This record gives sequence, structure tokens and C-alpha cells, in this order.
Amino acid sequence: MALIVQKYGGTSVGTIDRIRNVARRVERYRDQGHEVVVVVSAMSGETNRLLALAQEVTASPSPRELDVLVTTGEQVTIALMSMALQHDGYPARSYTGGQVRILTDNAHGKARIQAIDDHRIREDLAQGRVVVVAGFQGVDDAGNITTLGRGGSDTTGVALAAALGADECQIYTDVDGVYTTDPRVVSNARRLQRITFEEMLEMASQGSKVLQIRSVEFAGKYNVPLRVLSSFDEGPGTLITVDEEDPMEQPVISGIAFNRDEAKIIVRGVPDIPGAAYRILGPVGDANIEVDMIVQNVGADNTTDFTFTVHKNEMEKATNVLRSVAGEIGAKEVQSDASIAKVSMVGVGMRSHAGVASRMFQILAKESINIQMISTSEIKISVVIEEKYLELAVRSLHSGFELEKEPFESD
Amino acid sequence: MALIVQKYGGTSVGTIDRIRNVARRVERYRDQGHEVVVVVSAMSGETNRLLALAQEVTASPSPRELDVLVTTGEQVTIALMSMALQHDGYPARSYTGGQVRILTDNAHGKARIQAIDDHRIREDLAQGRVVVVAGFQGVDDAGNITTLGRGGSDTTGVALAAALGADECQIYTDVDGVYTTDPRVVSNARRLQRITFEEMLEMASQGSKVLQIRSVEFAGKYNVPLRVLSSFDEGPGTLITVDEEDPMEQPVISGIAFNRDEAKIIVRGVPDIPGAAYRILGPVGDANIEVDMIVQNVGADNTTDFTFTVHKNEMEKATNVLRSVAGEIGAKEVQSDASIAKVSMVGVGMRSHAGVASRMFQILAKESINIQMISTSEIKISVVIEEKYLELAVRSLHSGFELEKEPFESD
Repeated sequence: MALIVQKYGGTSVGTIDRIRNVARRVERYRDQGHEVVVVVSAMSGETNRLLALAQEVTASPSPRELDVLVTTGEQVTIALMSMALQHDGYPARSYTGGQVRILTDNAHGKARIQAIDDHRIREDLAQGRVVVVAGFQGVDDAGNITTLGRGGSDTTGVALAAALGADECQIYTDVDGVYTTDPRVVSNARRLQRITFEEMLEMASQGSKVLQIRSVEFAGKYNVPLRVLSSFDEGPGTLITVDEEDPMEQPVISGIAFNRDEAKIIVRGVPDIPGAAYRILGPVGDANIEVDMIVQNVGADNTTDFTFTVHKNEMEKATNVLRSVAGEIGAKEVQSDASIAKVSMVGVGMRSHAGVASRMFQILAKESINIQMISTSEIKISVVIEEKYLELAVRSLHSGFELEKEPFESD
Repeated sequence: MALIVQKYGGTSVGTIDRIRNVARRVERYRDQGHEVVVVVSAMSGETNRLLALAQEVTASPSPRELDVLVTTGEQVTIALMSMALQHDGYPARSYTGGQVRILTDNAHGKARIQAIDDHRIREDLAQGRVVVVAGFQGVDDAGNITTLGRGGSDTTGVALAAALGADECQIYTDVDGVYTTDPRVVSNARRLQRITFEEMLEMASQGSKVLQIRSVEFAGKYNVPLRVLSSFDEGPGTLITVDEEDPMEQPVISGIAFNRDEAKIIVRGVPDIPGAAYRILGPVGDANIEVDMIVQNVGADNTTDFTFTVHKNEMEKATNVLRSVAGEIGAKEVQSDASIAKVSMVGVGMRSHAGVASRMFQILAKESINIQMISTSEIKISVVIEEKYLELAVRSLHSGFELEKEPFESD
């Protein structure tokens, strides 16, 4: 008998029929003797419907009232889910974030969980009930309703699993696991049986949309085994756990992530003096623009070309900021380029396997794909290339590293 | 400067435009220096939409989960209303029933308010905010969400007004006040400037649908001046207050209520022995059927005809109950008649004016309307007549008692 937290997203509970299907899945776990806590999102479309109502009232709704509004979405789902379970003869009880009580700070729209009171949930589980909790929401210490931000239901699931010491936190989505890369780009992409928290974090931050970064961080921090599964099919999904100890049992590369959302900005001819980077990135940061990759090359004439990437939506803003300070910086020119893509190879095995980077560059060179920027971390190599080569690059790397094949590990 | 509680029903907040209109009305009161607490219902149609979702899941949803579900309706409205006020530059803050905290018993779907914690509302008012509270809902002492039942938003308004010691509780509806009778039946029915709690209670219990009985009882008990107004037009509405002291200033009749929802059941030839009434009404009460008017006449042959009214929906059930026990009771026959209507004249002035009943009977006799049953209380006379004469009876009584004319009182 295990204690399992299951989280179902908006698509999984998007209709009454789907809610019934989720209830039946929960019931099978109960029939096997497991204790189950279910975390649900708002039915798909509902949050957007509510946000549209707010927009009709005012272009800039107060974050406090927006949270009061949108949290009704999950509240509807917990009630319907509990009714579906009860209808099938399974005792169930629903809780809003405030009822649990999931205590957060008061940053409306992006609150962070500070504590979870688990006593009512434990009492219900002890009495044989399925507990159904509204994802995405909590209350601050003054009793104001807060939300954890988009994707926050995953975080609720993981945080509850941590608080309850659950054996596993299952995140049900519309995909059946984490793949070596996006199967829409590489048809023989392989579902991973297992991936480490670190790898999953890199995959997520490099553009793989399966899980929210914060929930993976949270699961890693509290060592909650996380499993990604499909709510529509059966199957074991992908288990996300701590790094294994024997590096020989780890694949060199777990997956390839990519991202078309970034744009490149080049500041040319900046005098190569101490503080140049700060004088460029300072104004960009002051304008609340997030910077991802940064590369600096010193040229022959003692000036430097400074290149970085931002989200495509902020390219124009960042370019304007830099053009207005180009004089002070002493830069010759500010250029931007939106037609780029980033490709990242992720794997904890890189730590013990040299030569991954050079093999990656070789594969890309063979396809005549020019690398514009390079950035590395201990378990990741990212390159920026021209956007039109993205699919070619991902496919070549996937087959070049033989990711379609199950690695030598046994599980 | 006064403290005013304003309650707006589902029709008054049924669209974003209407929510904006309500906000502007609230703002005018703020501009005049008043403190305002706004109580709102769910947008019209929303509660039924939610109930339909529940019905899709199960024919018999649990009352606890039904309350979790339907309370989202008012929660949406409080957020949108607060946003509308804020948009216009008026500080506002929303509260669910649980956030206020409106403490109730745990009778889901028909909970009763036990206590209201007013400290957060008072703090907000002191800081110049409009406070927007979700009607119809509360929490029990274990933190479960409860609802007060249909029409419960009126009760929330009155209870808040009582707890805060408000100067007036204004109930905004789609009519502009309480009328001498239904204007759809009597075209020159007159809006009452003032009516007592007692009269309003009799009017409501006799079929006038303007206010919920429980909220009037509550207002009377805590002596909260209640005003019924239209949320679509301007105008003073009708003020409901305690009985005035000088009987000379009170109109004899305040209004005429009527009701087509009842049916008559006659048990003929019951032996006239002690306990006969109990032997008839006992089985009816055991079957959970509510009885309204009761009349008993002793005939010449030492048997009695026992007549009473029930809701039309329960006529068949009540008839069947009595037919099955007719033998034990010794009754000759059980008859039922659904084509009846009840007409009631209400007025505290009856107390000091004799002859109201005889004048009423005279007016009906002049129109050849036969009276089937009569029931009186200190401030009310009700008669049951054949349903097809209802409009004629109401119109004749309205003009016979000159209710279209403003009474001698000065206000």
C-alpha cells in the first residue's frame, strides 16, 4: 500500500466524461489498496474564460481580485471530481487551497508555498476517503486567496506529496512521458523510462514543455519521486528521480530540447574595457528584460562584440534600450535577429564522458549548420543556429547520438 | 454619513455592463460620504449552469460538494465587482463567506448563520474601501463551505447589516418596491412607501415574491431597516420598518397577496370525535407534506368535513396517503381540487379597525365569488376561491378598499 498524489491538468478534466475517466483511474488505485490524493486544475478553457471576463471589466485588474476570480476554476473541478468518485461509491472530500490550508506568501499571481497543514488530509485518508485538492491556489497569512501562477497545479501536487511524505507524485498530462526529444520533430524519439531531476530541469528550461520548472525544482529539493504519465492511455510514463550513483549506468545524453522563442541581439564594437558587460546588460536588466545566453568575443581592434539572447517578444524593447545608450557605451552598432533557434543536449552522463561537445559540433558541421553561439553547463550544451535548420539539427543529433535506442541500463 | 449594506441579485449583476452600472450606483453613495458594503449573488444563469454540471456527473450530488461547486458563482461576481470599482478609482476589496467569516451550522444547502466576524470589514471601511461580500454562503466551524439556500443572498445582506449596525439594508431587485398587489393583475397598484416587517412577512408568506421570508424575519428580529429598490431605475423604493406607534397613522390594509400554488383536500364524513384532526393530519405530516390552511365544520349527522390546503405538487401524494388511511379514520370520502386560489388582505391597521372581514366578504359577494375557506390572523384575512375568479377578486378588493390612493399618512 502506497500513498500517491496524482495531479490532473485542465485537458485531463476538460469535460464531464473526462472527469469520470479520471475518477475511474483513481478508483483503480484505491482498489489496489493505495491511498490517493488528487490535485486538479480548472477544466480546460475555464481559466481563459474567467480572464476574459476580467478583461471586459478593466484592462488592469488588481492581482488580488484576479486571484479571487480565477481560483473558482479549480473549485468547480474539485467539487465535480468528488461527486464523480462518490457516485461510484468511493468516499471523497474536496478542499480548496485555503481549506487545506496551503499557506503562501502574498505575491498574488505568483505566490510561493510556505507551509502546508496536512492534518485534515491525513484524517480523511485514515477514514478511507480520496482527498481532492484544488491545484494552483493557496492563502496568505491574512486569509487572502493567492495563486501560484501558470502551471502551479504541478507545484501543488509536488508540495502536497512532500508534505505528506508520499511514495510518488504522478503528473498526468496529454503526453505519456518525457521523450528524448519532441516526437513531432523526430518520429522515432524514445520515451525515457527514467530521468534525473537535474536533467529534467535542464530540459524544461531549454524548452521542453512537459513539466513546469518550479515543480521539478521542488520535487528535487524534497526528493519526491515524480512520474509523468498520460491521463488518456495506460503506461508507466517517465520516472524522475535523484541522480543514480554509478555513472556507468547513466546514458551520456538523455534528451534534446529546443526553443524557437528567443532572439539574438548583437552590440558591435564596444571598447574592451572592464565593466563593458555591465554597461550593456545593466540597462537591459533595468528594463525588466530577461537575458538567456551571453557570449563575448574580443576582436583584433581592442573592441568587443557582445551577443546575447532574449525572448522574441522583448527583442524590440531590448534593441531600443541599447540604441538609446549606445553612445554612452561607445558601441558602434546594435543589431537584432529573430530568426534563430536554440538546441540543447542534456545528460548527466556528460560529467563522465568527454568529447560530447566536439561530437555535437561535428554532427552539425557535417550538415553544414553554422553555430552562432555556444553555452555549456555541467550537464548541458546549447547552441544557437539559424532557425530554418532547427529540425535538421535536432534529427541529426538524435540519430548521431543514437537516442532512439534504449541505453545499456537495465530498467 | 451612514453605513449602508446594499444587496444586488443575479439579474442586477447578470452581465459585465450591469456590474459596471451597479459599481456606479455604489460610487454615488460613496461620493455622498456613505460607507458601503455590497453583497452580490451569482450572475444570473450561473448557478443553474453549475447545477447542470453536477447533474451531468450524478443524479444525487452530495450536499457538501454541491456547496463547494455553487459558491464559485458569487465568488466570480465579488471579484468582478471589486475590479469594476477599482477601475473607477474606488478602493474595494472582496470577501467570500468563508473569508468574512460568516459562521453557519453545517446544514449544507440550507445552513443558518450563527455568527459574523466583522473585524476585517470594519478595518476596510475605516480605510475608505468598499467591501464586496459574496451572498448566499458561509462556512461551518470545521471550515466546510455552506450555502444558505435559494434567496440566501438577502439573508447575507440583512445579517451583515445587523452585525455591522448598518443604518439601512438596501435590497436591489428587478422591481422598484413593494406594491399594494401585483401590478400585472391590477394596473393601478400603488408602490408602498413604507410597510411593517409583520405585514411584509404576511405578504411574503401569502405569495408576494419580492423578498425572502427568512431575510424579513431576520431584519425584523434585529430591527434592521430594510429597503427594496430597483437596480435599474432611480427611486426611493419601499422601506420596511418596525410597526409605528400611532395606529391612526397606519393604513387599514397595506396590500393584497395571492397564491395559485395551493390545492384543496377535503376529507368528508369523519366521525366528530376528539382526535379526528390529528388522525387526519398525522399521516400527512409523517409523509413530510406541509399543510397551510385548515378548516373543520361539524355537520348535522355528527360527522365532520375536514378541509385543508397543500402545495399543488403534493396534492396527489396527500390524497393517496389519506385514501390509504380513510378506513381507520372512518372517513366516507377523500376529494381533492387543484383549481383554487388564495387571496389575502394584509394590514396592521386591521388591529384597530373592525369590519375589515365583513367588508371583504361583501365585495366578493357583490361579484358572486363564492368563498370556500377562510383563515384569519391578527393582521391578515385569507380566503380560498375558485381559481378562475382570482384576478376579478384581487381587482375588486383593490378598488373596494381604495388601495390605489395614497393613505392619509404624511411621508
